[in-house]
Amino acid sequence: MELDHLQRIEGGVVAARGFRAAGIHAGFRKNPQRLDMALVVADELCPAAGVFTQNVFCSAPVTVSREHLDGIGCGVARAVVINSGNANAATGEVGLDRARAGARLASEVLGCAEEDVLVCSTGVIGVQLPLEPYGRALPALVDQAGDSVRDGRSAARAIMTTDTHDKQHAVSYICGSGPHAGARITVGGMAKGSGMIMPNMATMIGVITTDAPLSPAAAHHALTTAADRTFNKVTVDSDTSTNDTALLFASGKAVAGAGTFEIGSAEYDEFVQALLLVCENLARQMAADGEGATKLVTVNVRGAADDADADEVARSIANSPLVKTAIYGHDANWGRIAAAAGKTKATFRQEGVDIAIMGIPVCRKGLALDFDENEALRRFEEPEVVIDVGLGAGDASTTVWTCDFTHEYITTNGDYRT
Amino acid sequence: MELDHLQRIEGGVVAARGFRAAGIHAGFRKNPQRLDMALVVADELCPAAGVFTQNVFCSAPVTVSREHLDGIGCGVARAVVINSGNANAATGEVGLDRARAGARLASEVLGCAEEDVLVCSTGVIGVQLPLEPYGRALPALVDQAGDSVRDGRSAARAIMTTDTHDKQHAVSYICGSGPHAGARITVGGMAKGSGMIMPNMATMIGVITTDAPLSPAAAHHALTTAADRTFNKVTVDSDTSTNDTALLFASGKAVAGAGTFEIGSAEYDEFVQALLLVCENLARQMAADGEGATKLVTVNVRGAADDADADEVARSIANSPLVKTAIYGHDANWGRIAAAAGKTKATFRQEGVDIAIMGIPVCRKGLALDFDENEALRRFEEPEVVIDVGLGAGDASTTVWTCDFTHEYITTNGDYRT
Repeated sequence: MELDHLQRIEGGVVAARGFRAAGIHAGFRKNPQRLDMALVVADELCPAAGVFTQNVFCSAPVTVSREHLDGIGCGVARAVVINSGNANAATGEVGLDRARAGARLASEVLGCAEEDVLVCSTGVIGVQLPLEPYGRALPALVDQAGDSVRDGRSAARAIMTTDTHDKQHAVSYICGSGPHAGARITVGGMAKGSGMIMPNMATMIGVITTDAPLSPAAAHHALTTAADRTFNKVTVDSDTSTNDTALLFASGKAVAGAGTFEIGSAEYDEFVQALLLVCENLARQMAADGEGATKLVTVNVRGAADDADADEVARSIANSPLVKTAIYGHDANWGRIAAAAGKTKATFRQEGVDIAIMGIPVCRKGLALDFDENEALRRFEEPEVVIDVGLGAGDASTTVWTCDFTHEYITTNGDYRT
Repeated sequence: MELDHLQRIEGGVVAARGFRAAGIHAGFRKNPQRLDMALVVADELCPAAGVFTQNVFCSAPVTVSREHLDGIGCGVARAVVINSGNANAATGEVGLDRARAGARLASEVLGCAEEDVLVCSTGVIGVQLPLEPYGRALPALVDQAGDSVRDGRSAARAIMTTDTHDKQHAVSYICGSGPHAGARITVGGMAKGSGMIMPNMATMIGVITTDAPLSPAAAHHALTTAADRTFNKVTVDSDTSTNDTALLFASGKAVAGAGTFEIGSAEYDEFVQALLLVCENLARQMAADGEGATKLVTVNVRGAADDADADEVARSIANSPLVKTAIYGHDANWGRIAAAAGKTKATFRQEGVDIAIMGIPVCRKGLALDFDENEALRRFEEPEVVIDVGLGAGDASTTVWTCDFTHEYITTNGDYRT
């Protein structure tokens, strides 16, 4: 589906009408230069949805935000407050109390109900979250919140951990059909990666806002659809975080009249398409900024017997340290790709496998092809490496994003807490 | 079970009576100083068993050796010929022909049937195996084969790839019960690791010999039992090789009379105990010598709901790049261990989880414990790091071995083929 007059715009979470944002140094981190608390606030209470980590060690804010979205990630909300520097995970009842207190303190400053505030945390696991920074910083954070590009960037920066840059993306398009034809719809978001990223969400926090008119159910359906095909297809190191959260707020301010996009309608499908574009862009930014990464690696698997096989093979390749170090070493070592595919439980035969690296066929029907190693080395200079694998076993396909595995990853993670 | 008069002895694959071995430079590798072809030969045809990789991209020698062991890894054999430097994997019909030709050429020099010779290969995937080295080196290899400690070591060295040292272990004990009580039984072996090591065998080749009297079925049963609890519990980088093979030859020379150890008898159980000791020692050597490793990491999981849960949690921890880099960085970061456990599908609750690192309790009932960081740093100086995780969900337990994740791993694997 082509979206009418689609354009990329600036502003991230404040691109859509009806939202303000800010980032501040609240004191979760020692370095006073480092923003560590973000706010995204809607002008009024609005439909909101969330998808959350499935890790058994899910963090306190994940539990609280899920509760605040009617226990299922589908409800209404006014704002989200996010801190970096402390994950509030593996912190027991005390942690839950503090996550609730954080939401309550924010609600008092915002003048809304506690359950209308969502909370996210990212950082070190197993350390109790201090509450002082909330009291100290919330009034200023709410006061500063605005809808300028700069405000969106401050919020995006405040949620960074080992990310090397903030991650934002926003698009707008003209609604092409249905009761709201002609309305300009905007979808924008911010996200943070970048280590401990794997399916079922990553140490990933993503906040998307839109001015499209959506019911809570439609917002949840759209976010689930988009997350499954984007955020949940990112893997940096096969580790799944305790805190992963993606949220969608829908202000409805793009249209004057009443009525929301109905699930399954043409205007809903257009919106999902735009949401997918935003989420895919953020997902690719997260993979490319994986800890220590020098390259974005895109793994396309086709010809799988079913979706589960496609996913398992793509993830196995994307998570293989041998594949990821080969890419770091600019080595078109397709044997490691074949071995990573072959170790899965997916149904296929050696003789059906074709592999191309950066568009260069290196394996056909399970056998080596002669290829121009110099051309391969030249293509390895590009910032993105694409691996295409055909299994010859069916019609299912998928794409997974990851990054290469480098000395810098080891340095970052061998030296994180100290 | 305590084995009578158990002692560790030298000699690896030639420790048991009835076997000779040798290693030679045949020309699979360019460096003439590097041994690249090993032979282990029994004095006579004897019961033999094999367990093999389950990778879809299984190599040609795996297919041929399985065929030569009656298609199921259980039969009789005279010898195994192993080359390093070329995996003969993803080489199609030509590769299969060459693997068979290698067995045939060896059988001609040994004076036995082609199907009585097993073959293993390890090295680069996707390159056709040259046959010239067989013709050139086999007569000398067979001629040199002997039963001295030096001969065992030559064979163990010839199968090395990125291993930093040869891996051998042998034990002997006095048979304590049954018809063969009083007989001295010897079990010895050699193995190679050390990257691309994961369950369902590793880039692991292991050859075990014994002079215990075993039927082919008993040899296969014993090897499968031992491999499941040792070799298949080693993971270096979650990658499973195309070539993994473990073989057991049983000469029966420890006893003069007829009759073999019956599966389930006390003398059989004693033998399995000794075989487990040898295989566990080799498995630990492989993990400790994982590519770039500075530490052996032992992950003990207890209190799991069932064996599958115990295995999944232990492997998830052992394969987590974040856990492995934390250990490299001497960081008792139990949050990463909890997150790795929590991302599995195993059944347990946060509140049931206890974690200790090197004997220091760091998490109880899912919550952080205060611990002495200096004492932890001191214990990190040891060559082995033990992680104990209790899930509080049942009675199942397991142990998995791995190593830390280091700069050297990245260097080795980012620069392997070039």
